[in-house]
Amino acid sequence: MNELIRELFLKNLGNPILDRLTDAAELELDSRNAVFTTDSFVVKPLFFPKADIGKLAVAGTVNDLLMLGGIPKYLSLSLIIQENFPIAWLERIIKSIAKACGKALVRVVTGDTKVVDRNSCDGIFINTSGIGIKLPATELGFRRIKEGDAIIINGNIASHGVSIISARENLKFNIASDCESLESLIIPLLKEFKRDIHFLRDPTRGGLATTLNEIVQAIKYSIIIDEKSIPVSKEVIYACELLGFDPLYMANEGKVVIVADETVSKDVIKYLRRNKLGKNAGQIGKIAKGFGKKVIAKTPIGSLRIIDMHEGDPVPRIC
Amino acid sequence: MNELIRELFLKNLGNPILDRLTDAAELELDSRNAVFTTDSFVVKPLFFPKADIGKLAVAGTVNDLLMLGGIPKYLSLSLIIQENFPIAWLERIIKSIAKACGKALVRVVTGDTKVVDRNSCDGIFINTSGIGIKLPATELGFRRIKEGDAIIINGNIASHGVSIISARENLKFNIASDCESLESLIIPLLKEFKRDIHFLRDPTRGGLATTLNEIVQAIKYSIIIDEKSIPVSKEVIYACELLGFDPLYMANEGKVVIVADETVSKDVIKYLRRNKLGKNAGQIGKIAKGFGKKVIAKTPIGSLRIIDMHEGDPVPRIC
Repeated sequence: MNELIRELFLKNLGNPILDRLTDAAELELDSRNAVFTTDSFVVKPLFFPKADIGKLAVAGTVNDLLMLGGIPKYLSLSLIIQENFPIAWLERIIKSIAKACGKALVRVVTGDTKVVDRNSCDGIFINTSGIGIKLPATELGFRRIKEGDAIIINGNIASHGVSIISARENLKFNIASDCESLESLIIPLLKEFKRDIHFLRDPTRGGLATTLNEIVQAIKYSIIIDEKSIPVSKEVIYACELLGFDPLYMANEGKVVIVADETVSKDVIKYLRRNKLGKNAGQIGKIAKGFGKKVIAKTPIGSLRIIDMHEGDPVPRIC
Repeated sequence: MNELIRELFLKNLGNPILDRLTDAAELELDSRNAVFTTDSFVVKPLFFPKADIGKLAVAGTVNDLLMLGGIPKYLSLSLIIQENFPIAWLERIIKSIAKACGKALVRVVTGDTKVVDRNSCDGIFINTSGIGIKLPATELGFRRIKEGDAIIINGNIASHGVSIISARENLKFNIASDCESLESLIIPLLKEFKRDIHFLRDPTRGGLATTLNEIVQAIKYSIIIDEKSIPVSKEVIYACELLGFDPLYMANEGKVVIVADETVSKDVIKYLRRNKLGKNAGQIGKIAKGFGKKVIAKTPIGSLRIIDMHEGDPVPRIC
């Protein structure tokens, strides 16, 4: 099994660094300013509309690097596989990883595999860790967020969470996950708007509501959002109504919350909309004063409501 | 559960980079020449004589960085935990990770946790990935190995594998694992002997025999070892005889195979023996010609035998 996995790795993911097959990879980085992240993926089911655990494992880690202004460069790939896992599935997952790496311009440079007996692991778990090189002209962080800043999102929310639950429960919504590496959207954006982009975060587990709450917890302002300006597809709204979920709390895997200087807000949205990954981009709110560390939503009927932090994601194992 | 884990992480592993709690860590590296590695740990049982999965997860990754001449700097830590996992065990494991990091002078700078239902994961799986900075004056690699080079090991083999099997099966050998980060042994050694150290590898899964076979597969020489010169404790020999295992194939987690220029062999051994982690160090063989890509052992009675590569480790889930 280990031999077979090694062959699959090399055939699909091979590159001069990985091919050396040492226990660690030697890298020559473009700069000493790096970003580093890790994520384990336990999503269930492994395959879902428009994506799978392999694509997700690349997108999740690549996007985490991007959120700190890192150009994604190198990935590690570690698999925990149950012993009777179908080889055809494994091959499909590895090919999906290879394709996603090619698109995001990252390379798998080091890996590891553990095989466990069939009662010890639920199919396959994947860990990817990533190294990126910081874009020099940017500075992102909570400390850069200020009153009046625009809060922008690059497109329709909640489709990943709904896609997973629908695939898991065999519901017939057929909603595609938004799972995607955002490298081709974020890097040009940061190069174009430089220090006018103040903060980035991907609203994954717990959805947009959780990300906005994490932001207000870390700054001294409030966030006011306009509910009707939040892009979400009719299909997702319909599915959420039937299932009893709030789209604001559903996971995304190809979305980014951008906090930008209000003076560039319109230009940022115009710029995002030119890219396929940002075609439904829009401003959803702003950084404000007067409500403490709270996320406040203007509802479609004009009243205000507090958007709370939930305990965890409403759907388990969405990533 | 996630909140609790976050608190445990910060309380025990906190440092200025981790405390920022961003999805990735920002690093300023000492150099652009880095090494990068990943390992998932699924060892069973989680606790065994003198170590546990936490200490192992640090030692395994730290040692992989050292083997390429990297000074270990940063670790990522990703946990997959089953939902009813005892908090007291988790705390014990995190404290063990913290202690091991302190000893090896590495910091956990980014992390992730996934909780899965009780039938989906066997207690806890841990992934650590690591970044190290290359020691400038060294050059390690298969390409540097040449005829006549000495093959040295830093101490008694096979104790990790025997310790795990003994703890798992409730046997009463009470053999301690050799699980240890080798930072305090390897870094001074490389600084002292620089380019006279040609190659390093830690003989983990599959033991010393597997590591020696991996070496001959990658070079154009043979390896001749002298079986009686291989350090191994009487207790381990006794246990292996009873269990029907060959110590040459049993895993180690605190050992290193050093290929050094023959002119410095004696000095290297003297140097190693001054360190607690190298007190049983000795030369076990040399790089030679004449037997092809084979590992040949001189037996205690003077005959020669081929030391083959096994398929995988004789004991599953030893790391």
